[in-house]
This record gives sequence, structure tokens and C-alpha cells, in this order.
Amino acid sequence: MPDLMIHYTKLEAHFAELHQIKHAQSMLSWDEAVTMPSGGGSARGEALAALAALAHRMLTGPKIGDLLDAAEAASDSLNDWQRANLRAMRRKHTHADAVPEALVSASQVAAARCQQIWRIARPENDWNVVAEPLAEVLALARQEATALGEALKLDPYDALLDAYEEGTRSDGVMRLFDDLKAFLPDLVDRVLARQAVPLSLTGPFRQDGQRRLGEEMMRTLGFDFTQGRLDTSHHPFCGGVPADTRITTRYYENDFLESFMAVLHETGHALYQQGLPADWRRQPVGGCLGAAVHESQSLFVEMQIARSRAFMNFATPHICQHLDGPQDDNAWIAENLYAQAIHVRRDYIRVGADELTYPLHIVLRFELERALIADELSVVDIPDAWNDGMTRYLDLSTNGNFTDGCMQDVHWFSGLFGYFPTYTLGALMAAQWFAAASECISDIETKIEAGDFAPVVAWLRREIHTRGQLKTARELLTGVTGEPLTPRYFKEHLERRYLG
Amino acid sequence: MPDLMIHYTKLEAHFAELHQIKHAQSMLSWDEAVTMPSGGGSARGEALAALAALAHRMLTGPKIGDLLDAAEAASDSLNDWQRANLRAMRRKHTHADAVPEALVSASQVAAARCQQIWRIARPENDWNVVAEPLAEVLALARQEATALGEALKLDPYDALLDAYEEGTRSDGVMRLFDDLKAFLPDLVDRVLARQAVPLSLTGPFRQDGQRRLGEEMMRTLGFDFTQGRLDTSHHPFCGGVPADTRITTRYYENDFLESFMAVLHETGHALYQQGLPADWRRQPVGGCLGAAVHESQSLFVEMQIARSRAFMNFATPHICQHLDGPQDDNAWIAENLYAQAIHVRRDYIRVGADELTYPLHIVLRFELERALIADELSVVDIPDAWNDGMTRYLDLSTNGNFTDGCMQDVHWFSGLFGYFPTYTLGALMAAQWFAAASECISDIETKIEAGDFAPVVAWLRREIHTRGQLKTARELLTGVTGEPLTPRYFKEHLERRYLG
Repeated sequence: MPDLMIHYTKLEAHFAELHQIKHAQSMLSWDEAVTMPSGGGSARGEALAALAALAHRMLTGPKIGDLLDAAEAASDSLNDWQRANLRAMRRKHTHADAVPEALVSASQVAAARCQQIWRIARPENDWNVVAEPLAEVLALARQEATALGEALKLDPYDALLDAYEEGTRSDGVMRLFDDLKAFLPDLVDRVLARQAVPLSLTGPFRQDGQRRLGEEMMRTLGFDFTQGRLDTSHHPFCGGVPADTRITTRYYENDFLESFMAVLHETGHALYQQGLPADWRRQPVGGCLGAAVHESQSLFVEMQIARSRAFMNFATPHICQHLDGPQDDNAWIAENLYAQAIHVRRDYIRVGADELTYPLHIVLRFELERALIADELSVVDIPDAWNDGMTRYLDLSTNGNFTDGCMQDVHWFSGLFGYFPTYTLGALMAAQWFAAASECISDIETKIEAGDFAPVVAWLRREIHTRGQLKTARELLTGVTGEPLTPRYFKEHLERRYLG
Repeated sequence: MPDLMIHYTKLEAHFAELHQIKHAQSMLSWDEAVTMPSGGGSARGEALAALAALAHRMLTGPKIGDLLDAAEAASDSLNDWQRANLRAMRRKHTHADAVPEALVSASQVAAARCQQIWRIARPENDWNVVAEPLAEVLALARQEATALGEALKLDPYDALLDAYEEGTRSDGVMRLFDDLKAFLPDLVDRVLARQAVPLSLTGPFRQDGQRRLGEEMMRTLGFDFTQGRLDTSHHPFCGGVPADTRITTRYYENDFLESFMAVLHETGHALYQQGLPADWRRQPVGGCLGAAVHESQSLFVEMQIARSRAFMNFATPHICQHLDGPQDDNAWIAENLYAQAIHVRRDYIRVGADELTYPLHIVLRFELERALIADELSVVDIPDAWNDGMTRYLDLSTNGNFTDGCMQDVHWFSGLFGYFPTYTLGALMAAQWFAAASECISDIETKIEAGDFAPVVAWLRREIHTRGQLKTARELLTGVTGEPLTPRYFKEHLERRYLG
């Protein structure tokens, strides 16, 4: 037996070391976003690039390929966990090995340059200045997609999708999105026709009160503060490592709900990370599944739990307590706060969009980036295509408005193609998980209203978090919910919440 | 020419990569002390151990040795800077290569265990429980010292001294310390006989006021906040990297002077780090010299500048402003604050000691650790030897008081032998630098009193910081001050300040 496992055992040791490099990368990235002084950027950039190159080198090359071959040849002597781990190792190797290092690094350089230009050009609504660097980023992304596609035997865009969520293919995404395209615009019309304008909440809301409120919600949901933190950054994110999970938010003096919901969203990501099996952490099989599953965990907490009437009934006294004194105002009752939390509005900006219009923003981006990678759309034509799409899906013209139009998201400018769909796949999946959880947990709404989140978090832990990458996302979802990803539960959820 | 330089050029690329690993180590260590939640310690420990092992591997082995040999054989084709760099590389390789990796790691494990036990045992005054793990740490430290000594052709304890400050030998340290042993106890007597008790300063001093005061002093001294930060940790330290230099302090509500001086001390370290030549940062020659030179920079700022009458005249209005309202109190005048800053007291604890008694604490530790490494003193005899030394040098018995006696410092319990002397070598060196600076800069006291630190910081930059490791500490000191390290300037400084 030991002889047959020697290659696998070597791989475990190797990936355990890689895990420590990832720890360093993750923490240095968190620090860059949260604590680093402005002048430290260039040195940090060099350090992160060196660690990325080191991690890439550790994943690639014939030596690892040979070890994987040998371990796979003897995979009969492995148990299920080890086989799943070996599969996850192979996947990492294949993805890393597919793209030549020179191309990876050319891509990174172009993306870093383009992102810097975008950062200045966006507030100035200056499309012309980003078009050329974006074209360069796109050309390199196409090359990467093609190389990856050859290795995975996939169409280039599908290869990018697969990189963010294993097994995702554009035909499947298209089927789901076609369903949403047929369903959502009409639903939005109906909701807008009937919804009342909630009473507005006026601040200022002190930052420390907002922070204490966020921390209390995190604690109540099960976030372990001995193994994590809440901090402030320009954009909310969840980073760190499972034993030290760090989420961030940003605070607005006149809008506490923004930060409140961002904290809850990131808490969903954080619960996933903190809930991974502690003993598996050093191995690929102990990691989270892809971006769509990760997003399903954040949206499970934000959309399925937190933006519900039951949750807002629970949260309102805490909101009033931490934000001081507005208790006797009519705006500060649970029903109005709930109305605020689910208010629907057609708007230009994706990140602030409600759960009804959000998928339409994603559909637009998916269609455009797919065409961009397929070379069916060129960078100069993005503004017109954006305007067409926004007009079609959201009845909004973005003609000449690049800032709030095709320049609003950093993704493409930083070389990220194939990521956008995961937001909406995650939303569908969150609804599907929640429907399954509701079958298992009696009176789930009553429990949420009572602030008793232990049963639902225990369900997430048991069914999803503690499984790591033992199964693929598709296997896990089908196993737990009885069917592969479907828009049905999402649509039912929206109808119940917005028309119910 | 290119052919002759090929080995050296490879080494530069290799050490540039090592520099990035050090960046990660340094930042993760800062984070561990400043921001990490308690539960993250074990994962962080693993990550830091993996990075240390990686860095050690990058420094050792025949491949690096061969490259160094080849580059040295062709060193005629190198310029002075490159030769100094090659020398610094060789030194790092020799020190790392001398000790087998298994011994390094056994040492680290034993030290980590011992330090944990010490952390609990110290407040409980429980010597018995630490004696055995300390004996294990010492046995391994002796082995390391012996191995290093063989490689460097040095006595084991001298090899340890050399690791912290190149060129330091115990016979030289002994000569300097004998001088201090003859001089200080009598001086302490005379100062205690004549000094008045300063009026006490009562708080509470709000932490944010203390922090703002510290930041203002840092800024005034030339600390660049675009390339650094001030934070809070259990023990003050200076960490990070030159482009992102992070110092810490701790705040006491009833004693602002402690934190104030800690910030100034760490600012001295920080100015050194921030003042290294930006273009040299990735190479060994661009690093700081050893621990004694580093300490000389912190003590230059703390002891030579900040605890002077001139500085306290400058600082008092700022202290009053940031700490609010005590301005009309008699205690809050510059002369009393100065008296506080230079108040002498025989006490058990090294870290809180004044500059007169501090070296006597160090002399004791030097004598004991030298005997420990030479196997002339065993762990069980430390408490008695400590009591003897404290009685002899400071007229204080530590009989049965381990907490404030031989268990007060973490150094030995974490495997640090040979480091203590650098504190006092740094103090002597700081006085020697300051005497040389005073020769160069006219009216240095008047400038300090006016808060005009630019000339003296420019002097430090020019003579020390921007030199990196181009010269050895001894060469640099002799070149700048005209003589090797001598206790003369330190003694003159003390007489002037305390008897003047």
C-alpha cells in the first residue's frame, strides 16, 4: 500500500506548501485593501507578483504533471476523500499549466495598466482613453481563453466560465438567462406599478454605531470573531483564510442600509469559509467550490434571509438601538425598513441594483463578454451595444454616459471575463438552497424572526460548508436539492416576495 | 564582461526573489502582532514556518554556494556596490548554511513551546515549569552556536553575537562592559543622591490624544506616512518593509510618557528603514546593518534627541495641546516633563529602565548567557546567578521573585541568545553618532528646541541610512566618527545630562 500511495503523498505535501503561499497572498491582498499606506503599493505589487509567480511555478511543469499521472494510475489505493483531492489538484494543475507563463504575466501587466487608467478615466466619463488599453487586455484574454480552451477541450469563453465555476458552460447559462429575460422585465413592470415609496431614513448615522450593528448581526449569524474580523475598505469583500476570515464594508453617513446589507452579504461568504472542515484546510479538497457557489452563500444570507420581512422584524430593534434615537419616527418601523430593503428601481448601476433588476445587468454583461471573447464584438462597439442592451432590458439609455454605463465595473478593465454570470447563477442557487432548507427546517420564518439562526446555519454547514470540494457543485446541488440548477425557485421567491 | 558577471547577475535575481518572501514574512508578522484575531495563530504559525523554510532553502545548498564561489572568482569585474552586495549575500548564505535544517526546525519547535509555557508561567512566578523547556531550548541553541561557530571559525557565543551584529566579539564587548561596570554604579549613586522627585502627571490621558501626539512627533521628525503607519500592539516594535514601515506602541491611560517615548524610539528605527536607498531595496546590500546599529538609530532619537531638555522645551506645548487642558498645572511645564523623562530609578525590570541603569541590566544578561552557551552555567542555577548579579549591579534582591527577575524577558525562552548586548552597544553608538553630528551641525540644540529636525535627520540619512550595507558597521562608524566604538561619548553624555 505505501508504495502505491507514494506519489499521492508527495502531492499532498506539495499542495500543503502551496496552501501557505496562498495564505500569504490572501493576507497581503487584504492588507493592501484595508491597511496599506498609499506609498506601499509598488513594493506590495512586486511582492504579490513574486508570490503569484512562485505559486504558478509550484502548480505547473512536468514534475507535477508526472506525479499526478502516477497518483492517478494508482488511484484505486486511495479513499474517496483522497480521490476528490487528487481531482482538485489535477484541475488546478490543468488550469495553470494551460497558459504559458509569459502570457499570464503579459496579461497581468496589461490589466494592471488598464485598471489604473480606468480608475482615472471613469469619473471623467472618458471612454476614449480606456478603449485602447482595454483592447489590449481583451486581446490577451482571448489568447488565454484559447489556450485554456485547448487544454480543456472547450470553446474559449466556456474555458473562462469553467475557471470561475467548474462545469459551467455558456449554453446552460444561456438557457437559464433566456428564462430570466422572458420573466423579469414584465415582473419589474408589475412591481413598479404597485410598490409604494418607502419613507426615507435620514442620517447622519455614526460610523461606530453602524459598525457595532454590523458586528452584532455577524455574531448572531454565527460569525466567529476569534477567527475573523470586520474592517473598512473601498469595496466590501471577504478575504483572509478559513482560520482568519476577514470581511470588509464601507460606511455612508446617510445610508446605513447599504453597509448593513453589505456586511450581511459578506457574512454569507465568511460563514462558508469559516465552515470548511478545519482538518482539510491545507488541501485543495478542503477549499470552497467556485464563484457561483460562493455567491450563493452570500446571497443566501443577504437575499433569502436578511431582506425578508421576518428578518427585518428581528433586526429593527437592533438597528434602532445601535443607530440611536430615531425609534419614534414612523420611518423606523420594521415594515418601512423592510420596504426599503426590497425597494425595486431601474437604475444604471449594477452594484446597487435590487434582486429583480440585478440579473438583467448580468445578462447584458454576459452577452457582451461572450461576443467580445468570440471576436464578434470589438471594444469600439461596446458603448453602443451597452446602450442597446440597457434600453432593451431596463428601458434606460446610456448614450454618452460611460461613467454609469460600460465603464462602471472594474471587471473587464482588470482582465476578468467569464466572472459576471456567477453573480446570477449564485442568486438562482441561493433560492434553490433556501427552498431545500425550508423543507428540512420547520417554521424557518418564525425562527428567523426570533433571531434563531442556528438551525439554518447548521443546515448550511452540514449540507454545503463541510463538504469542501468533495463533490462538484453540480453533484452537491443535485444531491441536496434533488435537481440541477433551475430558475424555478428564484422566480417563485421573487413572486412571493414582490407580488405576494 | 557579461560572461564574467553571469553568476553575479543570477544571484541578484535570486536574492530579489528572496526579498519578496521576506516582504511577506515581515507583513504577516506585523499582522500577527497588530490585527490578527486570536484564533488565527495556529494557521499563521504554519504559514510563517513554511515561508521561513522556503527562505532558508533559498539561501542554502550547494547551488547557491557554487554561484557565490563563481561570482567571487570573477569579482574583479564587479563594482564596489556589487562587491559589497556579493559580500552580504555570502554572509547570509554562510550563516544559513552552517546550521542543518533539522536543527533549525527542532530549535524553532522547542522555542515556540517554551515561549508558550513562559507566557503562562511568568505571571504565576512559576520557575519550575519553565526550567525544563528552557534547558531544552538552551541545549539546541548551544548546538546551533557550535555549528555556526565551526562555519565562522568562532567561539560558539561569538558566532551568536556575529549573527546579530557582524564583527561583534565577546572580548570586545567585555572590555566595553567592564568600563561601564566601573563607571555606572557610582554614577547612579551620585544621581540618586541629587535628583529631585518630579511632580507626578495624572491622567487619564485619552488614547486618541496620545496617538495624535505621537503621529505629530513622527511627522515632525520626518516619518513618511505615505510609506508607513503607527498602530497598537502588546509590545512596541518597528516592522514592515522600507516602502511601508510600520511602527507600534501601546497606550497607558495614566502614563503618556511611556507611549510617547516608545513612539520616538520606534521612529528612530523607522527613519533608518525608510531612509535606505530606494533603488537598492531588493538586494542584501540595501538592507540595514545589524541589531546594534539599528538600536543606535532608535536610541539616537529617543535618548540623544527626545529625552533632552531642548526637545522637551519644544514638545511641551504639543503635549499640552493633544492631551487637553492640564496646561496650567505646575507639573505640565517643560522642566518637570524633562525631569520625568530623565528620572533615574533602580528597578527590577529592564524594559522600563532609564539609560543609566539599563546597561547594568544588559551586563548581567550578557554575563549569564555567555556562561550558559559556554556550558559554565546551567539553567537550574539561573535564579541564584540572577539574584547575585542584580544585587551586585543594582543593589536589588530578586530572591524568589522570578516574574520580575530571570523570567522577565522573552529572549532566552524564545531561543534568543547573543542579542542582549546589542541594546547597550547601540546606546554607546548612538552617543558616538550624536557627538559626530554635533560637530557637523551648528547649534544642534537650538535647532532641536525649535523643532527643526531636518538638519540632524539629513545627517543620519547621509552618513548612515543611505549607506545600506556598503560598509561594515565598524568601517562605517570609524569612517564617520573617526574611531571605533568607544564608551567615551556615552559616559560624557550621561555626565552632562545627569550631573551637568
